[in-house]
Amino acid sequence: MWERIVECVPNISEGGDHATIDAAAAAVRSVAEVCLLDVDPDPAHNRTVLTMVGTPDGVERAVLALYEAVLPRIDLRKHQGEHPRMGAVDVVPVIPIRGVRMEECVALSHRLGNEIWSRYEVPIYFYEESTSTPERRDLARIRKGEFEGFPEKLRDPRWQPDVGEAAVHPSAGVTAVGAREFLIAFNVNLATDDLRVAKEIAKAVRGSSGGFRYVKALGLELSDRRMVQVSMNLTNFKKTPISRVVECIRSEAARHGVNVAETEIVGLVPQGALDEVALYYLGLASFSPDMVVERRVQRALAEESGA
Amino acid sequence: MWERIVECVPNISEGGDHATIDAAAAAVRSVAEVCLLDVDPDPAHNRTVLTMVGTPDGVERAVLALYEAVLPRIDLRKHQGEHPRMGAVDVVPVIPIRGVRMEECVALSHRLGNEIWSRYEVPIYFYEESTSTPERRDLARIRKGEFEGFPEKLRDPRWQPDVGEAAVHPSAGVTAVGAREFLIAFNVNLATDDLRVAKEIAKAVRGSSGGFRYVKALGLELSDRRMVQVSMNLTNFKKTPISRVVECIRSEAARHGVNVAETEIVGLVPQGALDEVALYYLGLASFSPDMVVERRVQRALAEESGA
Repeated sequence: MWERIVECVPNISEGGDHATIDAAAAAVRSVAEVCLLDVDPDPAHNRTVLTMVGTPDGVERAVLALYEAVLPRIDLRKHQGEHPRMGAVDVVPVIPIRGVRMEECVALSHRLGNEIWSRYEVPIYFYEESTSTPERRDLARIRKGEFEGFPEKLRDPRWQPDVGEAAVHPSAGVTAVGAREFLIAFNVNLATDDLRVAKEIAKAVRGSSGGFRYVKALGLELSDRRMVQVSMNLTNFKKTPISRVVECIRSEAARHGVNVAETEIVGLVPQGALDEVALYYLGLASFSPDMVVERRVQRALAEESGA
Repeated sequence: MWERIVECVPNISEGGDHATIDAAAAAVRSVAEVCLLDVDPDPAHNRTVLTMVGTPDGVERAVLALYEAVLPRIDLRKHQGEHPRMGAVDVVPVIPIRGVRMEECVALSHRLGNEIWSRYEVPIYFYEESTSTPERRDLARIRKGEFEGFPEKLRDPRWQPDVGEAAVHPSAGVTAVGAREFLIAFNVNLATDDLRVAKEIAKAVRGSSGGFRYVKALGLELSDRRMVQVSMNLTNFKKTPISRVVECIRSEAARHGVNVAETEIVGLVPQGALDEVALYYLGLASFSPDMVVERRVQRALAEESGA
C-alpha cells in the first residue's frame, strides 16, 4: 500500500466507441503506481469517467498517457452528447486521499496543466482549489459555451487560458484541470411519497439556499418505491460532515412528521468520512487510525517492508 | 497485506524481567508472516501480554517459537504476582480478524495444543470456542486454584487436560488455548459523580444480570475527573454491537437525568465494529467494504500483485 494516495477522475468525451474507451483504460493501466478502479461509459452523455488512484507521480504519468491514447481518437468537431463538454479530455479533477495535502494536489494539477499544453497544445483552465480567480472556481462557468463557443470566448480577455495560447486545439478543445476535495454522492430516502417534503428539505440543507456550505441537494421522487429522496453531493466532508447533514435532515423531516427510511452512498466514500460518523455518534473522546486492527497491521507491514 | 489474518494475544507469566520479555518479543518477531503489534508488561501482575497478528500458519509458528524462548526462562515455582496464573505461557487466545472463520481458529488452537504438548510436555486445556465442555468455556474456571492448586485439581476426573497427561509441567504449569471473538474494551463516561448511576447502568447492560449476552460491565469512579464510568468488555461485537450498547446506556442514563459525556475504546478495535456503528446511525441501505476508497485500493493492489 502506498503511503501517499491521490485520486484522479478524468472525464473523456467518448461514451460509446469501445476501441477508444479500451485504449483510454489500457493507457492508465500501463502506468506503474496507479490502479484504475473504475471505467464508467455513458453513451447518452457520450462521455466516460475513469477513476484512478495512485501516487502523485503515478497519477501524473497516467493522465499524460491518457492524452497520448485518446487525442488521436476523439474529434470534438464530430462529438454529440447530452453532457456539456469543451475538451476531448474534458476535465481532470485531482483529489487528496491519504498522506497528501490539498496544496500538493494543487501543485500536481499545475504541473499537469503545463505538461499537457507543452506536449499536446491543449489550452488549460485551472478550476476549484487550483485557481485564485473566483470566476474560475466553478467548472460550469469555465465550460459555458462549450467546445463550439470557445473561439468566441477566447477573444474575451477575462477568459484567456491559464496555460497556453488563446487558440482552441482543433480536435481536442480545451481542458479544465483542478484539485478539489473528495465528492460524496449521498442520498437520504424519506418514508413519504410527498415530493414537497423532499424539495423543502433539500432547500434547507443545500448551501445555495441557506443550508450547509458544502452540500448540493435536490428533492426527487422514487415513484416505484413510494418514497422521496434528498439527493446530495457533499463536496467537502471534512468541513460539512455526513453526520451533521443526516441529523439536520432528520430534524427537518420531523417537522413534517416524516421519518428517514434509509440512506445511500453512491460510489466511493473515503475512510475518513465513515470514521467521522462513528466518532460523532459514539462520542469518542479520542481516535487514531492506529486503533483499528486492520490499519495497524497494514502500517506495521508497510514499515517492515521499509516502504 | 495478507488475505487471511488471525490475531493471537498470548499472556506470559513474567512482567518485570526485561531479558525474558525481550526474548519473547524477539521470538515472535523472528517468524515470517507475523507482526508483533504490542508488548504490554505489567510488573504488578508479573505478566506480559503480547499482541501479534499474522496468517494462521505464521501465528502457529510464532506461538511455538514463544514457548521455545520463554520456557527455559520462567519458573512458576518462583513466580509471584497479583494476576491469577497457571502456566509460564498462561493463556493463548486465537481470534479471527479477516478472511478466517471461527472454526478455522478453533482448528488452529487444536493444532497448537497438540504441538505444545508433544514438544514441551505442557498439558493443554481448550477454552471458549475451542471446547465443547460447558465448564471449560470460562477461562477463570479452568485457572481456579492456579499453578499451586493444579496437582490437586488434576486428581479430579472432571479436570483432566484436553491434551497431554495429568501431570503439571514442573516449571511451566499448564496452558489454556482457545479461539474466541475479538474483545473490545469500551468505556462510557457519564456526566455525573454519582457512582450508583454507573453501577446501576453496568448492571442493566451486562449479560450476567439480565443485560446483553456479550457484555461484561462494571461501574467505576473517575474521581479525578468528577465523572463515573461504565467500564465494559464487549466479547462479541458481531452479536452485541457497540451501537446497541451505547444507545441502551444513553437511555438508561436518561432515567437518572444523566448524559453520556464521552466514550473510549481502549486498545484495538476491528474495522467491522466501527463499520457497524456508521451503518447503524446512518441507516445505510447497503454497505460493502469495496465502497471505501482506501480498502478498494488495497484490494486492487493485492489482486495486481497476484496475492
